[in-house]
Formats: sequence, C-alpha cells, structure tokens
Amino acid sequence: MEKLCVLGTGSWGTALALSLAKKGYEVVMWSRRSEQAEKINRTKENTEYLPGVLFPSNLTVTDDIKEAVEECKMVVMAVPSQAVRSLCRQIKGIVKDDQILVNVAKGLEKGSGKRLSEVCKEELPQNVYVMLSGPSHAEEVARDLPTTVVVASEDIEKAEIVQDYFMSPKLRVYTNPDLIGVELGGALKNIIAFGAGICDGLGFGDNTKAALMTRGIAEISRLGTAMGAEVVTFTGLSGIGDLIVTCTSMHSRNRRAGILIGEGYSVEETLEKVKMVVEGITATEVAHDVAEKIGVDMPITNAIYAVLHENVDPKDAIVGLMMREKKHEVEQVGLSYKKSSK
Amino acid sequence: MEKLCVLGTGSWGTALALSLAKKGYEVVMWSRRSEQAEKINRTKENTEYLPGVLFPSNLTVTDDIKEAVEECKMVVMAVPSQAVRSLCRQIKGIVKDDQILVNVAKGLEKGSGKRLSEVCKEELPQNVYVMLSGPSHAEEVARDLPTTVVVASEDIEKAEIVQDYFMSPKLRVYTNPDLIGVELGGALKNIIAFGAGICDGLGFGDNTKAALMTRGIAEISRLGTAMGAEVVTFTGLSGIGDLIVTCTSMHSRNRRAGILIGEGYSVEETLEKVKMVVEGITATEVAHDVAEKIGVDMPITNAIYAVLHENVDPKDAIVGLMMREKKHEVEQVGLSYKKSSK
Repeated sequence: MEKLCVLGTGSWGTALALSLAKKGYEVVMWSRRSEQAEKINRTKENTEYLPGVLFPSNLTVTDDIKEAVEECKMVVMAVPSQAVRSLCRQIKGIVKDDQILVNVAKGLEKGSGKRLSEVCKEELPQNVYVMLSGPSHAEEVARDLPTTVVVASEDIEKAEIVQDYFMSPKLRVYTNPDLIGVELGGALKNIIAFGAGICDGLGFGDNTKAALMTRGIAEISRLGTAMGAEVVTFTGLSGIGDLIVTCTSMHSRNRRAGILIGEGYSVEETLEKVKMVVEGITATEVAHDVAEKIGVDMPITNAIYAVLHENVDPKDAIVGLMMREKKHEVEQVGLSYKKSSK
Repeated sequence: MEKLCVLGTGSWGTALALSLAKKGYEVVMWSRRSEQAEKINRTKENTEYLPGVLFPSNLTVTDDIKEAVEECKMVVMAVPSQAVRSLCRQIKGIVKDDQILVNVAKGLEKGSGKRLSEVCKEELPQNVYVMLSGPSHAEEVARDLPTTVVVASEDIEKAEIVQDYFMSPKLRVYTNPDLIGVELGGALKNIIAFGAGICDGLGFGDNTKAALMTRGIAEISRLGTAMGAEVVTFTGLSGIGDLIVTCTSMHSRNRRAGILIGEGYSVEETLEKVKMVVEGITATEVAHDVAEKIGVDMPITNAIYAVLHENVDPKDAIVGLMMREKKHEVEQVGLSYKKSSK
C-alpha cells in the first residue's frame, strides 16, 4: 500500500484524505494538535470538521509532521492560505526534492499579495508545486456526490501524477497547465461570493445576484489576464464553476460573512460571528491594490473595498454598482463594438 | 403620455408592463381572453400570473389587439415561443412598418428549429426586431429588485430606443449587437436548467450541478458560435447570467421539470404536473439535431435527449457525463494545450 499524506485536518483536507483512503492508499493526516490527532484515531471520525463520516482503517492521524511526510510521493497541504508559508517552513528539511507539493487552499498572501505557488516556491524552491481547485464542497465530496476538480501546475507531468492519485468514479480530476489562472480564479471568486452575500443580506433577489456574478467573473478575468492568466481558465471549473458554487451555497463562509454585512453588522462583528478566516476580505485588499497599480477596472472589488475600509453603506455600494453608466454590454468585456446597419 | 403596448398577460409581460407604466407611459396590455382582460381591469391585479402587485391607472388590458397595437412606437410581444409565429400573423395588417417589435420569449421554433427573430422576419419582414433577454425573474422585477437585462438587435439605434423606454433605476438595460448570441443564450440555457433540475431531483449536490453548469455554458458557446454568435455574448448577462438564475431558482419551470424527471416521473407525467410549456424540451430537440448536422460535440444536450427520447435512465445519463474520459480541462473549451517544462 503506497503511503500519502495530508497536512491539516480541516473539512477539505479530511474529505480529500477520505477520498484517497477509499482508493486503498495508506493515508496519514497531520494535525498540529496532539489531542485532536488522538481523538480522531480513537473515534474514527473528525467530529469537529466533518462529523458523521467514518474513517477506514487505512486513514490515520499523527501529530508528528515528519512521520506524516516521509516516504510520500505526494504531500497534500490543506491549511488556510495564511498558514501556507509557515507550513512550508515547518517541512523544510523534512520534505525531499522529489516529493510533489499539492496545495488545496485558495487565497493570496496577506501583505505581499503573492499567489500561494509563489510563497511555496520561495520557501521550497526544489519541489514541484501543484494546485488543486474547483467547485467542491468538502461535505459533498465526503458523501461521494459526483464532483469535478482541476489540478494545475507548470509541470504538467507531475499534475498528471496527482490526477491519477485522486481520480475516482466520484471525483473527476482534470489537468490544466494555467497555474496562474487556476490560482487566481480560486482566490478572487471569494470577493464576488462576499459581494453576493451582501446582496442576499440586503434582501435583493436572484436577478441582482446573477448580475453581480456575471460582472464579477468578467472583472476577475480582466485582472487575471493582466496578471498572466489565460482567459479561458476563468470559464472553466476553477473559474465560473467555483464561483457558482461559492455564491449560491451556505457552505461558503465568504458568502455568509457578506450576508452579515448586508444585514447591517459591522466588519468586526461579522468576523467575530463567522469565527473562521474570510479569504474574500484579504483577496479584496490584494485585488484592489494590484488593480490600481496595473490599471484594471474592478468596480465590484472597489465597491466591496469601500464597504470594508471606507465606511460606505453596503446598500449604497450595491445600488451604485447597478447605476453605473455603461450602456453597451460588450464594453464590459472588451469586445469590439460592431455597428451594423439593418 | 406616450402609448406603449404589451401583447400577452403572462408574468413576464405583466412585470415589464408594470415597469413601463411606473415610468409614466400609457401602457395597454392585450389578452386573447376577454374575461381575463375584464377581470384585470376590474381588480387592478393579474391574480393569475402576478398576484399581489397592484396596477396603476395608466396600465390597462384590452382584448382588442388592434386597439392595443395602434399608435405604439414599441410593440412588446410577450407570448410563449411557440405562439410567436401565430401572434405575428395576427398583427400582420395591423402593425405599421415603423413600429419596433420587441420579443421577450426565449426559445426556438419547434419543428423548424428557427430562432424567433427568423420567425418574425418571415412574417413581418418590414419591422425592426429587438430581443430582450437576461437574468430576470418576473416576480423580482415586479417587486422592484435591481435587475439587468440586454436588448439585442441588428439595428442598434432601434435597440437604443427600446433601451430608453425600459431603463429605470431598478431595471438596467444594456444593448448588445449580437442578436444571434443573445437569442441562443436564452433558448439553450433551458437545456442546462433542465439538466440541473435532473441533478437536483437525483439528490446530487452543488458540486455536481456546478460542474454541469460550467460544462453547459461551454457547450452552448460551442454550438452558438458555430451558429454565428459571438463567444463573448455567452459570458454576459444573457449567457451565464441567465443560466445561473435559471439553474438555481425554483422560479424556473425548466428546472422544476428536470427535478421531476430526476425523481423518477416519466416525461408525460412531468409535463402533466408542470402544466406550462417546458422550453428546454424543445430546445434540447433542436440543439441535438443542429449539433449533429453541423458536427458540434454536445454531451449534456445528448444525454438529456437520450433521457427524453431513448428511454435512458436519468441517473445513468448524469453519471455517464461525469465519467467521460477527457482528462485535460482545456480540451473542453478548445484552448491550445501548451506543454511547458518546469
């Protein structure tokens, strides 16, 4: 039985570990909390993050990261985005050059605004980096509901190895060579999910939200391509696919945070209530700054930034977006405007 | 007060008529049933299709189509797609050459597979045709929830006139010169909504549905561009915008019909229960035939066609879609596959 490891015991890491274990691999998860590792091993269940799903005997948890990582061809990193750098530092000296790093967190580094592949490259330059993304609620993957994801890497052969590890009748894995596009789609969609939540919290309907999502993917594509991504990636699973799932589901904490803001809670109260990392807030800050620097028009991102940092009323922000003066749809997407006579 | 008319008294026609009346136009709706016209005028409410919304005094209903149409610069046709041809025939001889026809039905003609602009052009070749489409539940427009729509025409100046009639603080209207793309987006999205309903009826989750929607918009774009549309239109309000609204809302009868199929009802039982026209079924047949003729790969459409006409089990059809052997995401969208070394 080949050994694989998943670093982190959140819901997504657990769902992926279960998925790999069902294929017969010996899967070791790593938890930084020894009491949690002990509890999961004893109860055969991650009651905290994925209750109700029983662990098979070939899935165990350890608090010893060296024990988890050693002899694994594939090391899955399943920690929050802002913890990726410290995790890399923690496994430096443990991880071997030929081990493939698979990151499943979607976000950008706060402060630096770096993509997580850049963060990993800085800390562990010898290792091949693969990103796994797509429309995939952990709860549904754990329940074996048909799900599709994308693995992206600059090294497509290694992406194909990762694809083979994860591929199953219920989890379909596609490869995509556009690492930047897959990373940015996953990170930036949280901005739009946050905005969709604000719409919902304000009591607006499906029409308003669909408009916001449609323009949202357009502005993500604009920024993404300016940052080096392929536009077509944003039309795929890690782009609109993930955007749709995140904007329409209560599983999304970014959307839940937006709903609270829309309902009138302050940013501080919202973070207090959601209790988890809201990636969309960091993503908004990073995207706002980058877009300003490189001169890309990001009306939704800027509106949300204004709500978060400039004390703008959420309702004014959303209504302001609807009131923008552009009159030709094609201008929004940069299509040349062909005036044809009848 | 300038006079405008809306032919048809369904929920969408009524919502648009209310919207125009709120702007101060004298709006006359036409109903083919005199008792319905009389009832709406008496109760000031369309209890059958849009209950709970009171009509202002400048919005009335007549059963005399000539009275409705005469002296209107803009004639809004709000009947089911399969009734558009007969409506055109009915107003032939009444409508003047300089009156603008605005169609708000989304579909393709059964049998011929023609777009509704083609149908109108055949019947009323002298009149400019404008299509109004986008993510817009009637119920939400009637409640003044912020909504965006697109008006498309080969004659963009006339589209701009229509835009000015409808534009309000709550209803934002964009123009788009790609009439074919806007028409096909509105018609073909019903196929995917029907499929999304099947997913839901089978008890699959958001992950499965997001995958279906993502690949759905890709296959709509493929067929649409092969039929002469601009690909960018499918990324806009009348494309993914409308797809999102239709696939995620219970307002959609296409989705509701799919849910019943997924739950195990036969096609006949489903049509019996839904009681209204299911545009997605006609659209599936037309798209299936056209795609075969011009050689475009339409896996979702073909799977739904097989459920409707070849007695294939819905679950087998959806699972079959998930099992397709393509392994590189980019192949789906036709991006050239750049193999880069690390």
